[in-house]
Amino acid sequence: MEVIDRCRILAEFTEEPRFTTRTFLSEPMHAVHAQLREWMERAGMSVAVDPAGNIRGSYPSARPSAPRLLIGSHLDTVPRAGAFDGVLGVVLGIALVERLGGRRLPFALDVIGFSDEEGVRFGVPFIGSRALIGDIDAPLLATIHDAIAEFGLDSDRIAEAQVNGDFLGYLEFHIEQGPVLDSLGLPLGVVESISGQTRASVVFEGTANHSGTTPMSHRRDALAGAAEWISAVESEARTVEGAVATVGRLDLSPGAANVIPGTATCTLDVRHPRDEVRERLFALLLQSAEHIAARRCLRVSSEQRLDEPTVEMDPALVRLLERAVAGSGHPVHRLSSGAGHDAMILARRMPAAMLFLRSPGGISHHPDETVLPEDVSAALDAGLRFLEELERVNG
Amino acid sequence: MEVIDRCRILAEFTEEPRFTTRTFLSEPMHAVHAQLREWMERAGMSVAVDPAGNIRGSYPSARPSAPRLLIGSHLDTVPRAGAFDGVLGVVLGIALVERLGGRRLPFALDVIGFSDEEGVRFGVPFIGSRALIGDIDAPLLATIHDAIAEFGLDSDRIAEAQVNGDFLGYLEFHIEQGPVLDSLGLPLGVVESISGQTRASVVFEGTANHSGTTPMSHRRDALAGAAEWISAVESEARTVEGAVATVGRLDLSPGAANVIPGTATCTLDVRHPRDEVRERLFALLLQSAEHIAARRCLRVSSEQRLDEPTVEMDPALVRLLERAVAGSGHPVHRLSSGAGHDAMILARRMPAAMLFLRSPGGISHHPDETVLPEDVSAALDAGLRFLEELERVNG
Repeated sequence: MEVIDRCRILAEFTEEPRFTTRTFLSEPMHAVHAQLREWMERAGMSVAVDPAGNIRGSYPSARPSAPRLLIGSHLDTVPRAGAFDGVLGVVLGIALVERLGGRRLPFALDVIGFSDEEGVRFGVPFIGSRALIGDIDAPLLATIHDAIAEFGLDSDRIAEAQVNGDFLGYLEFHIEQGPVLDSLGLPLGVVESISGQTRASVVFEGTANHSGTTPMSHRRDALAGAAEWISAVESEARTVEGAVATVGRLDLSPGAANVIPGTATCTLDVRHPRDEVRERLFALLLQSAEHIAARRCLRVSSEQRLDEPTVEMDPALVRLLERAVAGSGHPVHRLSSGAGHDAMILARRMPAAMLFLRSPGGISHHPDETVLPEDVSAALDAGLRFLEELERVNG
Repeated sequence: MEVIDRCRILAEFTEEPRFTTRTFLSEPMHAVHAQLREWMERAGMSVAVDPAGNIRGSYPSARPSAPRLLIGSHLDTVPRAGAFDGVLGVVLGIALVERLGGRRLPFALDVIGFSDEEGVRFGVPFIGSRALIGDIDAPLLATIHDAIAEFGLDSDRIAEAQVNGDFLGYLEFHIEQGPVLDSLGLPLGVVESISGQTRASVVFEGTANHSGTTPMSHRRDALAGAAEWISAVESEARTVEGAVATVGRLDLSPGAANVIPGTATCTLDVRHPRDEVRERLFALLLQSAEHIAARRCLRVSSEQRLDEPTVEMDPALVRLLERAVAGSGHPVHRLSSGAGHDAMILARRMPAAMLFLRSPGGISHHPDETVLPEDVSAALDAGLRFLEELERVNG
């Protein structure tokens, strides 16, 4: 099917042979822009690349100075990525315009491919969508200045990337990147919010000592304490509906087979659609670390690294999207996104909505990432119905 | 006190300024040999350095072709070591000969400083004592050949490092390097065995996945499995009198804050004075890993890296040492050594015994490592009584 074929074509434009790796304004992004420009122009759009490296195809309205609907996602990838994360949302936007067959709507349509969402190149995510809402500060601009110049763009004109005017909203199609829709047997999911997240590092300190000469009763084993806590993190998170909590890194010092660990440094990542639930769970997990450490004569300290609130999708657009999904004959399922998306940034400036497509096996950020042709058809049908609903409301 | 002062003098001979770091036949070992030679000769010994870099001071017997007693320990150190691990046993040997004041015994006395026990330079421990019992194989010889030549010795003559003749045994004084004597308030401990050890790597494999998009119920978190097992290792070891079990290293893949760990690789170190107890505990811990993995839909695999049996000290020498400790007015306490020592190697060739001196705070392999002057006096008294007991038995 053409949408999938096009995603596979774009996946060939990569920094690393045999894999798909395409970071912010890297060389292969030129080829992606050229290919998108061709498809966009063929669909009747006028195309421009802004100073932040976002590509935008504009499909005019029947009426002059009509409001605009943005449809988009990102064109950059993680290292050794799949072919659909991000790109699918842009290609689907173009396919929707093609399906209009030249028919004008009472609003203009912009299909946008963002230059950066993953944040791989500079460790700062969402550069593309932040530029679109005018949120690039001076330090970030200094960081990305050379990359923009090398790509042949002018970072002095970054303000021109900011969108102006009247917007109906922003719609993003994206693969779920998780197993929920797949395990429910559903092709589509309407995103109601993007979950907030807390990140922290939690450090247990005991006493490094000889593994052979230190009896069990004399140990202050930092890893034994951390292990007890990691089990608590898992079991506490399981008791809170919709919460996830993860220890993804664990570094030991000194870290030798015959030395009792003196220090164990863990990362903690907690997410939940409701901020107060997330905050309560996070506090509980820190408390649990303190109880465990106290009982074991360890010291524990923690440092919060991130505290991002949940971003709600626009209720009116969510209802419209639900009607569109139902109208195209598919079951309606609402869910919260556990991952961050460009829609989260756009929501600061305009009503935003997202439609998830099932991720078979929940696999993403991996060459095996895929999407089913029938789910893409379902998304296209729902997308067209969404435009019709929006036309009806704004007619 | 002189023994302690001498250990501090030798600690100044180091590869690394401000720390004590002295590996197998490194440059500062020349200065250590020169200093020991001076003290040994002054005490009436004739001194030689063998082709493996062991220094030996020989104190002759009253009788020609009398059997020999060896007293020794090692002169190399771990990086950033304390001043007493190893060196104390050599310096105490010299002090004992000094205490004889020239009096001849019915046996000869050799005080030996081994060139390597820690195995830091080549990752192979006990090079010095292995050379002494003729256990340097061709691959090891090839490995250490250049280091021996650089030190000015001839590795072609390594066989000459092997001891020949009739031996009463080997006696080693060593700091305990653990908290047992300190917590019991005892200056000395008679070692009855050197515990065997099993080492293995245990790998838990699950599925790496996005920490935000993967519900708790869908996870196959390798670290959560490993954490549950680490708690089991600790609690099982605690139920076995005299056993220690340690997870000292834990490596995660991919090891990112926002990714559920797909693989957790742990080391396991199990020790016990009785081989069958150690083997049973090790098997139980592997079983526990399998149960935990099965319940969590993880895979687990393990690889045994070391399986060293317990080495018993010579029962007759142990009894003699106990009588010597009691006779010098100190409480007699038997214990098993959780760490390996040169006595373990010498025991293959001759009766071996060890006397531990209390380690304040159990601290070792650290600049804060220390020993109490009164404990050194106690060890000297016990050592002299031991020589007297041996004289009586072999008189």
